[in-house]
Amino acid sequence: MSVRKGPTTRTRLREVSGERVRDRRDDLVTEEPLEIRVQAGGARRTLAITMRTPGADFELAAGFLHGEGVAGPGDIAAIGYCTDEDVPDEARYNTVTVRLEAAELPDLPSLDRHFMTSSACGVCGTASIDALRSRSMPYLAASDGPRIAPSVLYGLPGKLREAQSVFGKTGGLHACGLFTPDGTPLATREDVGRHNALDKLVGWAVLGGRVPLRDHVLLVSGRTSYEIVQKAVAAGISVVCGVSAPSSLAVELAREFGITLAGFLRGERFNVYACPERVL
Amino acid sequence: MSVRKGPTTRTRLREVSGERVRDRRDDLVTEEPLEIRVQAGGARRTLAITMRTPGADFELAAGFLHGEGVAGPGDIAAIGYCTDEDVPDEARYNTVTVRLEAAELPDLPSLDRHFMTSSACGVCGTASIDALRSRSMPYLAASDGPRIAPSVLYGLPGKLREAQSVFGKTGGLHACGLFTPDGTPLATREDVGRHNALDKLVGWAVLGGRVPLRDHVLLVSGRTSYEIVQKAVAAGISVVCGVSAPSSLAVELAREFGITLAGFLRGERFNVYACPERVL
Repeated sequence: MSVRKGPTTRTRLREVSGERVRDRRDDLVTEEPLEIRVQAGGARRTLAITMRTPGADFELAAGFLHGEGVAGPGDIAAIGYCTDEDVPDEARYNTVTVRLEAAELPDLPSLDRHFMTSSACGVCGTASIDALRSRSMPYLAASDGPRIAPSVLYGLPGKLREAQSVFGKTGGLHACGLFTPDGTPLATREDVGRHNALDKLVGWAVLGGRVPLRDHVLLVSGRTSYEIVQKAVAAGISVVCGVSAPSSLAVELAREFGITLAGFLRGERFNVYACPERVL
Repeated sequence: MSVRKGPTTRTRLREVSGERVRDRRDDLVTEEPLEIRVQAGGARRTLAITMRTPGADFELAAGFLHGEGVAGPGDIAAIGYCTDEDVPDEARYNTVTVRLEAAELPDLPSLDRHFMTSSACGVCGTASIDALRSRSMPYLAASDGPRIAPSVLYGLPGKLREAQSVFGKTGGLHACGLFTPDGTPLATREDVGRHNALDKLVGWAVLGGRVPLRDHVLLVSGRTSYEIVQKAVAAGISVVCGVSAPSSLAVELAREFGITLAGFLRGERFNVYACPERVL
């Protein structure tokens, strides 16, 4: 029997509907911790532990490392599950080690806090954006990237929903999808964690040699936060759409780096909060 | 002019709807980092930096510390914004220091990773639950806590939505509410971050001397994850409801600690995934 958990978990439940009560079984989205380790030379370090839905774990690790500026497409020598003999099988599939090409571990001072900050100057949204600037994230000019017809955007949520296999069974996931400028789906990923879904998608692109994703459109299933836009900036994506609202800092960041940010993409309407030039 | 940011931020946007395009202004939910520091005796340490919606910041800090097992109701001497002279005003309102009654900082080994783990045995959901067990989190027996009528649960989402002032303006927030067993709303809190909304709510209870919240019902606006149930366990809440799906680990944790967990609470129906005895 495999101890490797799948993306869904069968459970018993009691359904109450008006006056009717019945016990039945249904599928839940699986949530399990994933420990992401980096290794270089003889050194190894745990970078993060995140609650995620099992599946596409190597992509999740690669995407996370890319978003944090730790490792890009050419920096990864190998990715594997834990091979320590003394680790139980179940935990083994919850630990991914990314072996870097480098001879030693890069300097990783800021990861515990998700972004750089000096306690001398304090934290604020502007400082968070400054920290990205200091990482030499790519800026896009209005003339960079594709031009998108509104009718293409109208069709994206339906295409994302069609591709959400686990959501259909559990109703419990975030999803994101990558599309060409004419709306052709390239890849979709799901996860209990909003950021993990995007890490998996970016990781797919990193491992396939597809970044930067300048000529692509990203759709996320929920709200658009600072962290979502940050990962899009790192991946070089020029058009980001959400079916729900963006936050203030997501908009500020998108404007700063020249990303087109659309929200409330539902039916035949949407709002553009940053860089509307790419929408025809 | 105040540099302290409010829960909403005015922005310009371009609305595209069918053939119509117009430029207008609207409110976004504000997202800004908050640095949570603890201080005891002469020592001070940053525990976390989280992206949050400004407002109820002291409650957020108190609730976070309670959920992580760092400080309970009697452990907090004072909470304040940063008073360092060299910190710019904007950043000052993004840094909260919790001064503890204790003479020195407690041992805080596990906070960087959100839960205890030994890299020798690896991470897995069961180990995460074991870690909570080792923190002496309260177990509830089936006979503990209130008995709730389904009709009371049916009414909760409407009451939560009525109380969501910022969501109404921006559409961009998570919310959670605390109710009595007969459905009377006690408090609701909103935030861009799902966990922050619950931290604010629990912090309100901690600072008001109301924990443990044994005889209360919690409703969260979205999905129910492991971390949501973990915070409910720490606060002693016996009934947790979500309007969306729970995750596998949320259900496992609720069963382990004797918490009634309901999901898909919409209209006149819901599912109970753990401890249905409290639902009449």
